[in-house]
Amino acid sequence: MAGSELTNVKSPRVKAARRLTKRAFRDQDRKFLAEGPQAVREALRLDDVVVELFTTAEAELRHGDLISEALLKGVPVQRASGEVMAELAQTVTPQGLVAICRFVHTPLEEAVTSRARLVAMLAHVRDPGNAGTVMRTADAAGADSVVFTDASVDPYNGKCVRASAGSLFHLPVVIGSPVAQAVQRLKDSGLRVLAADGAGKHTLDDVDLSGPTAWVFGNEAWGLPEEILALTDDVVRVPIYGQAESLNLATAAAVCLYASARAQRNA
Amino acid sequence: MAGSELTNVKSPRVKAARRLTKRAFRDQDRKFLAEGPQAVREALRLDDVVVELFTTAEAELRHGDLISEALLKGVPVQRASGEVMAELAQTVTPQGLVAICRFVHTPLEEAVTSRARLVAMLAHVRDPGNAGTVMRTADAAGADSVVFTDASVDPYNGKCVRASAGSLFHLPVVIGSPVAQAVQRLKDSGLRVLAADGAGKHTLDDVDLSGPTAWVFGNEAWGLPEEILALTDDVVRVPIYGQAESLNLATAAAVCLYASARAQRNA
Repeated sequence: MAGSELTNVKSPRVKAARRLTKRAFRDQDRKFLAEGPQAVREALRLDDVVVELFTTAEAELRHGDLISEALLKGVPVQRASGEVMAELAQTVTPQGLVAICRFVHTPLEEAVTSRARLVAMLAHVRDPGNAGTVMRTADAAGADSVVFTDASVDPYNGKCVRASAGSLFHLPVVIGSPVAQAVQRLKDSGLRVLAADGAGKHTLDDVDLSGPTAWVFGNEAWGLPEEILALTDDVVRVPIYGQAESLNLATAAAVCLYASARAQRNA
Repeated sequence: MAGSELTNVKSPRVKAARRLTKRAFRDQDRKFLAEGPQAVREALRLDDVVVELFTTAEAELRHGDLISEALLKGVPVQRASGEVMAELAQTVTPQGLVAICRFVHTPLEEAVTSRARLVAMLAHVRDPGNAGTVMRTADAAGADSVVFTDASVDPYNGKCVRASAGSLFHLPVVIGSPVAQAVQRLKDSGLRVLAADGAGKHTLDDVDLSGPTAWVFGNEAWGLPEEILALTDDVVRVPIYGQAESLNLATAAAVCLYASARAQRNA
């Protein structure tokens, strides 16, 4: 470990890291913060992603394996005081590890190709927790990639990174695609594009999901706008058997993505 | 609307409502708070549940239908200042409607009978958002009831009520059951009791879900303890096809409950 403990919350290094909590600065620096042992572990598995790792003395003891791994990979590790960590971490109970990471997203043309069998697209999804959970679920369901349209939340948002539980580092993620362009690319790559929306005529049980499929998920409150529905091949709803009005976005996405995964594997 | 606007945050009525944000007082008064138009609407559909409705002048205009419905049912409606509403509401952007409701839960023996086909049981679930989302999903999947064991979060917690999106008022909910007793009742009622756990030998695709089934969901971080797994008929995991370590509790529950709903309907 080089250098002494960083204790000054106003030091330039803390400020340089802290500014990454704002999207404008993330986009400018092309870097973001990954917090906690799980995210840091997954980030370290990739080459040239972690730029610097901040750790408290306590976390250094508890997560010695991660610190060693970082040092082995030539990543500078900086011990920081609890006060500095509180400044960098965005959770109420910071776990003492924050990594500055380089952007990891992939161009649409690389993430979506004719080899893709299952893709999740987030259009107008605004809640970072939901978006991160969908990334995690898409990863679990074996999706090939996740596409965030230009009107969706930033996947590098701290809450989104946390909710993804490392999945942001697992599968190709596309950012800021205009919807029409993304849908066209999905179709050109041979995927059937299905909008998941409560207004769908067909239910999940009525459609054949055995072929390559891209699911489009919309806004938490108002779903998908007409102009996006019109671009897709079909609009499909998760059947509601009880009295609930609808499902939460992330749970609806889980039901759709796993229905696809199952149908493709049974095909 | 009787009386004038309530503006004093220290008034006994505001204090009597405010104390319901704490579990100990809820249990003492056998009442809880339901916030926002969706929860209030669903609560008003039941008889003798809403004891009193607080509304801001603004919400009164926007949700005139709900106010009328409350008055028609003989529910006292009290206009409150924004300051009083902020004191009662537990969200950052309160929507101007808070109802004091009587407890709505059901004894285990009424909620779980031989007529039940699908039951969700929450054992050691601690996050109120997750618990509420599971209630909402269970409702959507057509479950007959939801059982909260004694080591789980209080379903009357404000965050849980909100995340349930009204489902707390839709289906029978059992509270504070000792696990062994609940599992016994489920078995005696003819349900196969399946623990959803990443340690399961069988995956969701390997088990026959066409019969009456109860799903047991565990803690967000550490799943289900050995002694609970031992009580169940089988331990089943949601298959992970990608690199994700696990699924979020609420999304795993959604995949399991919908797999059951589908299998029962196709049987």
